Amino acid sequence: MSANKNNLLLLFDRPSEPVFVPKGENKTVFDVPDKFLTDRYRPIGTQLANRFNADTGDRVPVRNISIPNLDLPLQLKRRDIFSLFIPKHRKMAGKLIDIFVGMRNVDDLQSIAVYCRDRINPYMFNYCLSVALLHREDTKDLPLPSFIQSFPDKYVDSAVFSRAREEATVVPEGSRTPIIIPKDYTASDLDEEHRVAYFREDMGINLHHWHWHLVYPFESANRDIVNKDRRGELFYYMHEQIVARYNFERFSNNLGKVKRFNDLRQPIAEGYFPKMDSLVASRAWPPRFANTRLADINRSVDQIRIDLSDMEQWRDRYRAAVEQGFVTNRNGQRMPLTEEGGIDILGNIIESSSISPNQAFYGDLHNMGHVFIALAHDPDHRHLETFSVMGDSGTAMRDPIFYRWHAYIDDLFQLHKGSLPRYTVARLDYPGITVSNVQVTDGGTPNNFRTFWQQSDIDLSRGMDFTPRGAVFARFTHLQHEPFAYNITVNNASGSDVMGTVRIFMAPKFDERGLPMQFRDQRLMMIELDKFATTLRSGQNSIQRRSSDSSVTIPFERTFRSLDANRPTAGTAAESEFNFCGCGWPNHMLIPKGTPQGLAAELFVMVSNYTDDRVEQELVGTCNDSDSYCGIRDRLYPDRRNMGYPFDRMPRQGADTLADFLTPNMRVQDVTITFTDRTVLRPNTT
Amino acid sequence: MSANKNNLLLLFDRPSEPVFVPKGENKTVFDVPDKFLTDRYRPIGTQLANRFNADTGDRVPVRNISIPNLDLPLQLKRRDIFSLFIPKHRKMAGKLIDIFVGMRNVDDLQSIAVYCRDRINPYMFNYCLSVALLHREDTKDLPLPSFIQSFPDKYVDSAVFSRAREEATVVPEGSRTPIIIPKDYTASDLDEEHRVAYFREDMGINLHHWHWHLVYPFESANRDIVNKDRRGELFYYMHEQIVARYNFERFSNNLGKVKRFNDLRQPIAEGYFPKMDSLVASRAWPPRFANTRLADINRSVDQIRIDLSDMEQWRDRYRAAVEQGFVTNRNGQRMPLTEEGGIDILGNIIESSSISPNQAFYGDLHNMGHVFIALAHDPDHRHLETFSVMGDSGTAMRDPIFYRWHAYIDDLFQLHKGSLPRYTVARLDYPGITVSNVQVTDGGTPNNFRTFWQQSDIDLSRGMDFTPRGAVFARFTHLQHEPFAYNITVNNASGSDVMGTVRIFMAPKFDERGLPMQFRDQRLMMIELDKFATTLRSGQNSIQRRSSDSSVTIPFERTFRSLDANRPTAGTAAESEFNFCGCGWPNHMLIPKGTPQGLAAELFVMVSNYTDDRVEQELVGTCNDSDSYCGIRDRLYPDRRNMGYPFDRMPRQGADTLADFLTPNMRVQDVTITFTDRTVLRPNTT
Repeated sequence: MSANKNNLLLLFDRPSEPVFVPKGENKTVFDVPDKFLTDRYRPIGTQLANRFNADTGDRVPVRNISIPNLDLPLQLKRRDIFSLFIPKHRKMAGKLIDIFVGMRNVDDLQSIAVYCRDRINPYMFNYCLSVALLHREDTKDLPLPSFIQSFPDKYVDSAVFSRAREEATVVPEGSRTPIIIPKDYTASDLDEEHRVAYFREDMGINLHHWHWHLVYPFESANRDIVNKDRRGELFYYMHEQIVARYNFERFSNNLGKVKRFNDLRQPIAEGYFPKMDSLVASRAWPPRFANTRLADINRSVDQIRIDLSDMEQWRDRYRAAVEQGFVTNRNGQRMPLTEEGGIDILGNIIESSSISPNQAFYGDLHNMGHVFIALAHDPDHRHLETFSVMGDSGTAMRDPIFYRWHAYIDDLFQLHKGSLPRYTVARLDYPGITVSNVQVTDGGTPNNFRTFWQQSDIDLSRGMDFTPRGAVFARFTHLQHEPFAYNITVNNASGSDVMGTVRIFMAPKFDERGLPMQFRDQRLMMIELDKFATTLRSGQNSIQRRSSDSSVTIPFERTFRSLDANRPTAGTAAESEFNFCGCGWPNHMLIPKGTPQGLAAELFVMVSNYTDDRVEQELVGTCNDSDSYCGIRDRLYPDRRNMGYPFDRMPRQGADTLADFLTPNMRVQDVTITFTDRTVLRPNTT
Repeated sequence: MSANKNNLLLLFDRPSEPVFVPKGENKTVFDVPDKFLTDRYRPIGTQLANRFNADTGDRVPVRNISIPNLDLPLQLKRRDIFSLFIPKHRKMAGKLIDIFVGMRNVDDLQSIAVYCRDRINPYMFNYCLSVALLHREDTKDLPLPSFIQSFPDKYVDSAVFSRAREEATVVPEGSRTPIIIPKDYTASDLDEEHRVAYFREDMGINLHHWHWHLVYPFESANRDIVNKDRRGELFYYMHEQIVARYNFERFSNNLGKVKRFNDLRQPIAEGYFPKMDSLVASRAWPPRFANTRLADINRSVDQIRIDLSDMEQWRDRYRAAVEQGFVTNRNGQRMPLTEEGGIDILGNIIESSSISPNQAFYGDLHNMGHVFIALAHDPDHRHLETFSVMGDSGTAMRDPIFYRWHAYIDDLFQLHKGSLPRYTVARLDYPGITVSNVQVTDGGTPNNFRTFWQQSDIDLSRGMDFTPRGAVFARFTHLQHEPFAYNITVNNASGSDVMGTVRIFMAPKFDERGLPMQFRDQRLMMIELDKFATTLRSGQNSIQRRSSDSSVTIPFERTFRSLDANRPTAGTAAESEFNFCGCGWPNHMLIPKGTPQGLAAELFVMVSNYTDDRVEQELVGTCNDSDSYCGIRDRLYPDRRNMGYPFDRMPRQGADTLADFLTPNMRVQDVTITFTDRTVLRPNTT
């Protein structure tokens, strides 16, 4: 017997339907050994077998293997909610990942996965099986379905589901119509913060965040799974970019920069009511009332006992380390915070993951901030409540406090960055190379980005347990922009062909007061739009680059990929890439919304010296089209510079404005972002 | 064509399943005229007809009538939540009740009800059709299903439903097992208030409260429906008894008396997390965090704009009226607050219903208190939130604040009661009648009530839209007591046979400090256990009375009655009673929990002079077995005394203790209530 490994993917289908119920649209049946059935179903096994044996498709044999010890991961109840931010949950998940990764072949992996499916908490099961499939040599080419397929309830207004259930039950498949998700369902514009809800609640952004944490797991006995190249630095940079992008959206909506949540003892002014349910738990995600205060946590159920003063202590130790220039590892040795590598160490410390050099001393600041906020409504578990959206990497970005917390986290990183030597002209310039012209074209006025609303459909049916089969679509509204191209003219006066890295960023031109931005502020609002290597022939070069090729984003189709459509053929190299590339900023959110009058921004283009940027490695067959925020699978981060270069440091003396900062290999183009309040249906929706 | 009126009851089945989907276990189909279909379904009407025509039972013709104007009731969106406490909703419901009541025969009522069913908000539809069926001459004998059958989600832990859906889909009907609802799911005992959650969250108590408000609607153009005999006084008394019973439960759990919520500007210390969803809206009931403050309300969606100071003004006007001894009606005339009738006027004012003599001036204190609390988390609708459990009479009693609010409302009533002339001995005594002995027997130690936990099952399937048919049971745990009897010896020395009214109350013997109670406190904790008329022959009389006959309660079977079982035959007089009698305190909650050591209490028995109590009316064929808290359908309240007599006033001079208060026709027996922490399965559960 040798399992078809594609059947493993069927275990992601309808997470609460028992494993013996036919799976997928083809009604594939797993032939589950009797002893694999749960206590509820074993006594009526024969009855069930008869019931579900009619009208089914393929039958998948499941080998009856001896089951490893699952006590630890089984400690999380089946209908509880799972959170990577809770250390106990991380440990349980780490154990299960190790079990899945450790199975000697696909046959055995299938058996243990089938055994676990109806016993392990479905969220944890999905996470651990996903991480294992991504990291096992024999399964890493399998095309994982998007998380939203299994758990649409983490991304969609809860009110959609009863309507979807009606549609699925009453209306035959050909006549079904999409269920419209209102664009504004969590709040009204009376709530100022709601103006940027389209960003916070964007499905693609939240899927990216979930996927990022899938690619960079916190914990595993297999250190390689956690200890990826420059992981800590990427944690810093990816989240720094999120905050910059959020601020850019705020500027597009007449809101000032997000306020750092730098005093945990102050009430949180922002209320948030997610209006989502957990279908597995039949529980709503708890809201947060306006002006809620954090409190010391003592919850034996989660094995968390922590005071606000612990957080303050960790913060103080972190600050001391940065100011002294070294951290102390768990053996008491000093690790210097070097110009290149310091940020990576600090990222691991602050996040923190299991590769933090001294978690006992520096603590778990970022994760525990999520936990404190997520449990503010029930810090001692007296109300038997679970955490709010801030406790789940799939939902945390919906909440305004996410950005306030990460603005503060970023502030801590900037403390270090501010202490580094500033880039001299020599470290910025590319002698002989001049960027002489930059123009953005999208078919309309040059140097004007155009944004609007788009409606797209997503099939909910794979995540809706116990309903008739067949697609049921929800139609959601998201930001979109016209596809555009950069047209860059570069003069190469070096006398020979050379390579350069083109780095494209954008930031608002004016600050909240309407005054031109100071560089020290503007650099923190620079959002990366693209980065690519190019050959520069001697003389004048015309470079054209399309927005769809951005190194930051993945295409819409990949964000929402389903098991059936829009994907490469199984087993090909293209498919292997497809998977890892589930991580990536959604392309429809590449450009901030702008304003109806046109938001003034500055587009920055730099061509840096590729010999200083280059990382020697083989890239063929690996996904690298969204490497800026996600890195590359099984490879080094493909840019030797510190992430965020050239904006990751304070500017050199005298560079008070962006114009001052420029060297000949850089150029700034004034651009506008014009938003039109129209809604178009995405092509190819039903 | 003449409709079988029993088919109207099928419209209560599965409230979100469209009306053309087969109804009930017999799969009855309404032949809905095409134009009755909603816009969603009219275009695919033929397709649907074919789909649902196979494998069905009876067909019910529906007459195509012209539809009256439904604009007002249609203003509430189909998937919103309906609240009798919101004036706009009351108006909409009042209009729909009038339409239903005004249809000239059952045929037309069926047509309009079928037309409304898929358009009107399901909660409002259920409420209005229930009120109409209860009050129409040609339908008042119809056996309404319990509200919990249609909307189990208002009474049951939300986590039960996904499990019930699994059971209904996966397991054949004969093999299904009940889903256990944990006894403690809303909080743990870390929350002191949770000790009395078994009372607050008791399904029977909440069903009683819903049913009480069904029998006593707030508003209708048909004044008779609202203006029932002594309605205002019953509002006072029924809620006074709820508070007394709650305090008795608190004493059983080492908690002090509930604190009046007498300052709306203080934060509410008690948090409450109901953990229930609305299946119709796919939205959770919002929680209340600890220490939430009320705020002025300005919600155009509900047409409510009201300040806390409005409440304070209404309260001040009410107090002034009580102190001056009259209220001013809407024509500016004084209505004296008489000893007998004053409380009825004040009840109507405070509740308030549409028969309040001057709502414009005295306002809407009680209802708006519910609204302020229910909307504390979103007073200006910025978060698009709906009200919490306090906003629905079916769920309000779950929340600790309900009792704090009603303790304050009761305080306002006691301000009036305290101003009334005290009962003289002459108004209490029954010359010649002596109660010489009282004993309670339940098969164990005499004068000891025994309480314990019982588990009972309830079928959820009629309220679970879009699931396969067949019963799915939830098993819940509730308080229960051993059935008992009062044995009362009464001497009649009057020389002739007379009639007497036996009034039985009980209160704790000691206060929170463990000291014997002062009468002025104890009278407010007196819970009514029974009241009945009896003939007293000359000489010694032995009266036996069973707990199941209590005038306060209805039997367990009636609280949870279903369409199929445990009910009288359709069309009989017994059945007509059955309906109204959905109102009534649940018998399983007749006796407070007590304590393991035995809580000391005083059982009070009085025999009053029936000639002073008697109300002349024909009672045959009307339900009167739970009249104490509910009155009698279409009849006067069957006791001429003020409700709560003899404890509804301050005691006469010198009566500082209950013993001082006694006249020969009264007797007090020391009793204990002993709780044993054991759980028994209710006989006849599956």
